[in-house]
Amino acid sequence: MALTAVTPDFINRLRAVLPETAFREADAHYLEEPRGRWSGQAGVVVAPQTVEHVAEVIAAANTARVPVVPYGGGTGLVGGQICPDGPAPVLLSLARMNAIRAVYPDENLMIVEAGAILSDVHDAATACDRLYPLSIASKGSARIGGLLATNAGGVNVLRYGNARDLCLGLEAVLPDGQIWHGLKRLRKDNTGYDLRDLLIGAEGTLGVITAATLRLAPRPAGEGTALMVVDSPQAALKLLAMARDHLGEGVSAFELMHRMGLDFLAETLPDLRQPFETPPEWTVLIDVGLARGLDPADALEALFADALKAGLVSDGMIAQSEAHRHSFWELREQIPEANRRIGAVSSHDISVPLSAIPDFIDKGAQVIAALGNFRINCFGHLGDGNLHYNVFPAPGHSRNDHLEQRDAIKRALHDLVDEMGGSVSAEHGVGRLKVDDLERYGDPAKLAAMRAIKAALDPSGIMNPGAVLRA
Amino acid sequence: MALTAVTPDFINRLRAVLPETAFREADAHYLEEPRGRWSGQAGVVVAPQTVEHVAEVIAAANTARVPVVPYGGGTGLVGGQICPDGPAPVLLSLARMNAIRAVYPDENLMIVEAGAILSDVHDAATACDRLYPLSIASKGSARIGGLLATNAGGVNVLRYGNARDLCLGLEAVLPDGQIWHGLKRLRKDNTGYDLRDLLIGAEGTLGVITAATLRLAPRPAGEGTALMVVDSPQAALKLLAMARDHLGEGVSAFELMHRMGLDFLAETLPDLRQPFETPPEWTVLIDVGLARGLDPADALEALFADALKAGLVSDGMIAQSEAHRHSFWELREQIPEANRRIGAVSSHDISVPLSAIPDFIDKGAQVIAALGNFRINCFGHLGDGNLHYNVFPAPGHSRNDHLEQRDAIKRALHDLVDEMGGSVSAEHGVGRLKVDDLERYGDPAKLAAMRAIKAALDPSGIMNPGAVLRA
Repeated sequence: MALTAVTPDFINRLRAVLPETAFREADAHYLEEPRGRWSGQAGVVVAPQTVEHVAEVIAAANTARVPVVPYGGGTGLVGGQICPDGPAPVLLSLARMNAIRAVYPDENLMIVEAGAILSDVHDAATACDRLYPLSIASKGSARIGGLLATNAGGVNVLRYGNARDLCLGLEAVLPDGQIWHGLKRLRKDNTGYDLRDLLIGAEGTLGVITAATLRLAPRPAGEGTALMVVDSPQAALKLLAMARDHLGEGVSAFELMHRMGLDFLAETLPDLRQPFETPPEWTVLIDVGLARGLDPADALEALFADALKAGLVSDGMIAQSEAHRHSFWELREQIPEANRRIGAVSSHDISVPLSAIPDFIDKGAQVIAALGNFRINCFGHLGDGNLHYNVFPAPGHSRNDHLEQRDAIKRALHDLVDEMGGSVSAEHGVGRLKVDDLERYGDPAKLAAMRAIKAALDPSGIMNPGAVLRA
Repeated sequence: MALTAVTPDFINRLRAVLPETAFREADAHYLEEPRGRWSGQAGVVVAPQTVEHVAEVIAAANTARVPVVPYGGGTGLVGGQICPDGPAPVLLSLARMNAIRAVYPDENLMIVEAGAILSDVHDAATACDRLYPLSIASKGSARIGGLLATNAGGVNVLRYGNARDLCLGLEAVLPDGQIWHGLKRLRKDNTGYDLRDLLIGAEGTLGVITAATLRLAPRPAGEGTALMVVDSPQAALKLLAMARDHLGEGVSAFELMHRMGLDFLAETLPDLRQPFETPPEWTVLIDVGLARGLDPADALEALFADALKAGLVSDGMIAQSEAHRHSFWELREQIPEANRRIGAVSSHDISVPLSAIPDFIDKGAQVIAALGNFRINCFGHLGDGNLHYNVFPAPGHSRNDHLEQRDAIKRALHDLVDEMGGSVSAEHGVGRLKVDDLERYGDPAKLAAMRAIKAALDPSGIMNPGAVLRA
């Protein structure tokens, strides 16, 4: 049966079960997304403060067959938080469910509500001398519920895993309005199907996450950061292997930056201090966190010396202070902002098998060159085989000069990724942006299973319709 | 529609699509399980050698509505591999799909078939200087498919996670006979629902895993093992916190052993050398794997010295050789065999929040004492909050004297676990043994979702009927 838009009558039904404070104006920020591809619509915006109220909203929507679009920090890059067409939905903001419910330092875990902002979660972990390792550039506004719903990645996946790996349990409202109380504080629990990992990464299409038990890690005794200049992505991979050989799991992040990113930073954010006089072709940022008895700067020195001997690196800098570390990271974390200011024709969040990275970078450049005169900024989480591969107009041109080429660029690059056994969405999710890609490149048996699961758990199809799977 | 038993006609249909070599006699070992609770039945036993042949079997069974019971190493402890009643099934052995398909040391992963034996996987990892960290006592016969289907745990979960955490991708046959080709070599892949983690832990009820991409870890530069004597489980927890403070993720295993286990070893395996003259009330086995620059024995010495100063330990031994390490581990790994020889009235695989462990041990003893005169052997993976809590008759009595009390013991202990927010199946799974427990203690919303998923993916109900969910 078809979905129906929010009506005044439906809003009245919500008013009967929700306090007045739960209703929000449908401000512009709810209807925009960071890349400006879509404008959203909302029949009504509600921000409940309890899981019971979330359940009331979902149950009412399920009865009335009104779509529900969950909304976290609004930072998603694939349009999962935006409903551009179809019947106007309930926009369900989790912003007011933002409590840190409990912290258990002895158990290395905490229980937080879906609306908690990532940097607040970081602070709560730091306050008890622990680490919540998930970290992304938008940490000041991204919320835990959205990070889990999209299985966010970021800079520390190499060592600590992604959002899924860092979650032990969930509280969620399922599409029929039932509350699943799954906030266990257990490292091992083999009682039935993994509903947790099914909701994580389902981008709000199978229910709404309202709270989570998050894993914390012990804070390493010492941390250090280095920039090392490598000749090629191949040399970067060898450096990664050497770093792990030296430091084991002590390698927390291993990020690759191309010269283009540093050029863009120089052009758009000239106040940012650049570490090398001439931007190197390829730079690696290595972050380590080590146990007692090891000095991070010494360990990075030793690694650099060995890498120099092996001909893998030609230059490097090791941070000598926390401020210095921060300045290295600032460089890496401001690249997306520089990209935004330059204006990409097309942005890609891809992964390939680790050893295929150099080949992908070579072939990707050929694919793009065949399509026209473009600049490529390729950077990201080399240690995870995950690159952000962004295509820009030549100097003097703008993204608008190339709008008609965007689809061809996307197709050519995604075909290449697929041929290499990669993923066209490594860490950002599918949202509404990559529904076609999923149909094109997804395994047919898996897609059929996904559709069956969606129909089984959400037979009315109210949850975030049009995201992940075609509505 | 009801399931039907294997018929001669159905076997003929299998003969039309499978080579003769795929058929096996229904030997006794296929119809027994380690704890001797059930006898199984099999209409036919097949052991295909390719995923295509597995798909033929499942498709034929789906058409004929014949049950299929997947069979790995037969080491499962909850009866998931046994069909004691109902229509006689196809017993689908994965034993002949046992190839190590490929090893990628540079990517820290390997692709293996479901029938590969765990110790063979260990050897293949060692051969390329890597570690596949999953390790359990039955590693010489347990097969990867079964380990994944039950999301096995073991002694290294504290550091490396369980079977689910160590898997990057799957090849599987879904209940309609479709093959899911999901053997990606990717650390990050956010393209759709997590079918991988849904099949892992589903105990063969949602499909058959035929191959997996397994994560490998760098082999630590140095490893060490110590036994430390603690006064109480509370002191053991404080020692764990101190060990992590000293060594971070370097702590690979943290196992608790009660005096009863050492007594049982002395009684049943007298040739095993006991490290302490008088078996201590509580002993902790600590295993560490450290990066370059740290000496494991020195690190364990330093930990012991600090723990002694803090009053946490009263005695200890640090292994001085690989043989010595092995003898410490032998002690821990032979406890299940000693238990078997003594004969438990009731065995429990439970987890509780880490900080609740001492309270659980206290209250558990009270619960059991109220039911009669029993001995308790409580041991296991303290670092994961996972205890094997086994109840034995008093000296001079046998398990058969107490068979009528078994249900009451189980109920009382599981009620306690549930009250404490724990799990009645931490690492062994549900199988057929704990279907009632799952119904009693499981979250109703999660159970409803599980049933909906089962009906959606396996509408005929052919896959391992009666395991996990009531058939």
